[in-house]
Amino acid sequence: MNIQTKEEFLQVYKASTSDQLKEQELDQDVLEIISGVRKDGDEALYRYTNKFDHVVLDSLIVSEEELLEAKKQVDAGFLDALKQAKENIEAFHKEQKEQSWFVNKAPGILLGQKVTPIEKVGVYVPGGKAAYPSTVLMDVIPAKIAGVEKIVLTTPPQANGKINPHVLVAAQLVGVDTIYKVGGAQAIAALAYGTETIEKVAKIVGPGNAFVARAKKWVYGDVAIDMIAGPSEICIVADQTAPPSFVAADLLSQAEHDELASSICITTSEALAEQILAEVEKQTNVLERSEIITQSLKQNGKIIVTANLKEAFSVVNEIAPEHLQLMIEKPYDSLSNIKNAGAIFLGNYSPEPLGDYFAGPNHTLPTNGTAKFASPLGVYDFMKKSSIISYSEEALLQATDSIIKIATVEGLTAHANSIQIRKDDPNA
Amino acid sequence: MNIQTKEEFLQVYKASTSDQLKEQELDQDVLEIISGVRKDGDEALYRYTNKFDHVVLDSLIVSEEELLEAKKQVDAGFLDALKQAKENIEAFHKEQKEQSWFVNKAPGILLGQKVTPIEKVGVYVPGGKAAYPSTVLMDVIPAKIAGVEKIVLTTPPQANGKINPHVLVAAQLVGVDTIYKVGGAQAIAALAYGTETIEKVAKIVGPGNAFVARAKKWVYGDVAIDMIAGPSEICIVADQTAPPSFVAADLLSQAEHDELASSICITTSEALAEQILAEVEKQTNVLERSEIITQSLKQNGKIIVTANLKEAFSVVNEIAPEHLQLMIEKPYDSLSNIKNAGAIFLGNYSPEPLGDYFAGPNHTLPTNGTAKFASPLGVYDFMKKSSIISYSEEALLQATDSIIKIATVEGLTAHANSIQIRKDDPNA
Repeated sequence: MNIQTKEEFLQVYKASTSDQLKEQELDQDVLEIISGVRKDGDEALYRYTNKFDHVVLDSLIVSEEELLEAKKQVDAGFLDALKQAKENIEAFHKEQKEQSWFVNKAPGILLGQKVTPIEKVGVYVPGGKAAYPSTVLMDVIPAKIAGVEKIVLTTPPQANGKINPHVLVAAQLVGVDTIYKVGGAQAIAALAYGTETIEKVAKIVGPGNAFVARAKKWVYGDVAIDMIAGPSEICIVADQTAPPSFVAADLLSQAEHDELASSICITTSEALAEQILAEVEKQTNVLERSEIITQSLKQNGKIIVTANLKEAFSVVNEIAPEHLQLMIEKPYDSLSNIKNAGAIFLGNYSPEPLGDYFAGPNHTLPTNGTAKFASPLGVYDFMKKSSIISYSEEALLQATDSIIKIATVEGLTAHANSIQIRKDDPNA
Repeated sequence: MNIQTKEEFLQVYKASTSDQLKEQELDQDVLEIISGVRKDGDEALYRYTNKFDHVVLDSLIVSEEELLEAKKQVDAGFLDALKQAKENIEAFHKEQKEQSWFVNKAPGILLGQKVTPIEKVGVYVPGGKAAYPSTVLMDVIPAKIAGVEKIVLTTPPQANGKINPHVLVAAQLVGVDTIYKVGGAQAIAALAYGTETIEKVAKIVGPGNAFVARAKKWVYGDVAIDMIAGPSEICIVADQTAPPSFVAADLLSQAEHDELASSICITTSEALAEQILAEVEKQTNVLERSEIITQSLKQNGKIIVTANLKEAFSVVNEIAPEHLQLMIEKPYDSLSNIKNAGAIFLGNYSPEPLGDYFAGPNHTLPTNGTAKFASPLGVYDFMKKSSIISYSEEALLQATDSIIKIATVEGLTAHANSIQIRKDDPNA
């Protein structure tokens, strides 16, 4: 981690973009898996699970027995915390629910949009050594509130053929319909195209490794996906009122995700920058994941000193960070300066982990600069709109000439005819 | 075009899905173009325009002179119609504008979402023999209403190096900032990654040919895109109150788009089915684009007879048509039965061309069954949300134990530390 000026930082900084040609090798593998699942269905899922997860499964579906067993394995304190988180996440996301609407702006004319839930959704939850019950809550609760009829979850089995009990408990708590023991590109293919056991869904959400991410890109269009997530990022804007120990702890919490994670602090105070650096060194050593943290900070840890807050915000908007913490004296006064960020945390007592697990807003956020065009996952991602167009005979007859004129210019004369035929003989 | 039962139809019907392996040949060409533009910038744009459009350009940008010339070339009647359409499209889309919001559900806690426009948007408009001024209106107006700062348009030049005057007039009418004479995959690459002349945008919208569609799929993730559009479809549900001549004219207007367009009528009346067939034959012959229409109807034209309306709606929801016309006695009574459709046209006087050009709702709609998960293009496509999380010291201190518990279960101990450090010494 080092201290830079805004100019030094921006000269080098660029949100990474995909190198389409470089990914072709991974794509060959992913495409083979997708086409295997489309061809062989369940049989391919058993085969790939054996190959990649080194597990021979009896069933692709988590049994009732396994669900009961999981409940016994998790401690009551964790379950209480999870229930509180669920309540907060539900309360926040209920505010996002959209309504159908219409307007009558002229006699005989009704226009509007009907809002309906997506019918079937698949949630991918990564496996591996860690378990992510919080991802289950964040991905399933908005779909439930939207009114999605069927929500299934798929996650790779552990070496013993089981699923982590914390994930199973979270899935039961939020009411997932079925849980599958399938991971990787094969899980994405199964959700996108269906197999004997796994029903095709209309939308796939959830994070995953490179195979999952590429598979999501390939099935995109045939089904909807939430986003293609990149490494996680934090950007903290701090002035002299920010406790350096808090800032350092928050940078480190981001860095522990993985070596590619970015932890960036932007401050107007050179003195604070030095204090934060000292705190980072002090705190890193006592943390469990200090190796990952050290690697991550070395590659992507930066403290940027700017002349004033205005300059700091221009850097923020260029980065468009996934997480933005405003640890400054008057954070609300600066909100108008923020154009691009996934989530904005205000003040010294709103650290990122509060949002990751508990406060209520979604932790599935646009990464790698995509906050320039994308939003946090929300209820709106599980609903869709149908436009409503209703004209009376009188209303249409007033509009015929304009419609025919434009259709004719575009060379679509059968379009013109559809209007003309009504004009010529409205009561056919 | 033939008459089928629901069972006969559904047995064969499947929304087409992408064959990822089959597209690899096209992809090779598209990837070469994208990487050419990323490497050589403007020079690649001139080169590909020469190669694919057979034009040697002096400049990639439409000049002020060309814009003035275009205004002189279009007739006043067309301009009036276009202005009326613009007014209707603006009025409808203004209703879609979302607001930032927040809630205070407990002392010291503020949560919400800040809604901001995307800063830079690129609109692709297809060229070729036809001109699509209506596409310009439908793609640019919602972006303008969203508050997008910079909107550029790109479209392939005609053989004479010029752009169709109707497109240029429409672009001026809605306030496009700059118009480029670039088409195909090279235009998409330029918008996604930038060149010396064309500034990188955050989102690309608009329809195009196969090259454009595949290029959009490849740059998706580095920039946002609206959708990957497929062939256009109409589905008309008709009962004995529908005039067969109207139904036939509307099916034909869909069929004239191209050979791959789908025109489907679902009716409860066998007699009406026969009358519609007869009308289709009668009307086709006098239409300019009768060859395309005949091909399209042969491949994808269907009349399906169902026992009752309920059955008809189950077919509709399976197809999830781009355009749905309800030409039945009480269309509003049936609205609750419709789950999946891009736009719903009610009654005998709301034919699709009314929506294509004039009424106000967007004509950029989800095709090929994607109405199961996607919405019409709207103002919401040009805005994005940032979550807001603000906890006071007291509020955070009440939540610390739950957050630490979940972070620990997920194995993210630096996350736990970020909370613990505040708990231990809140006023550091």
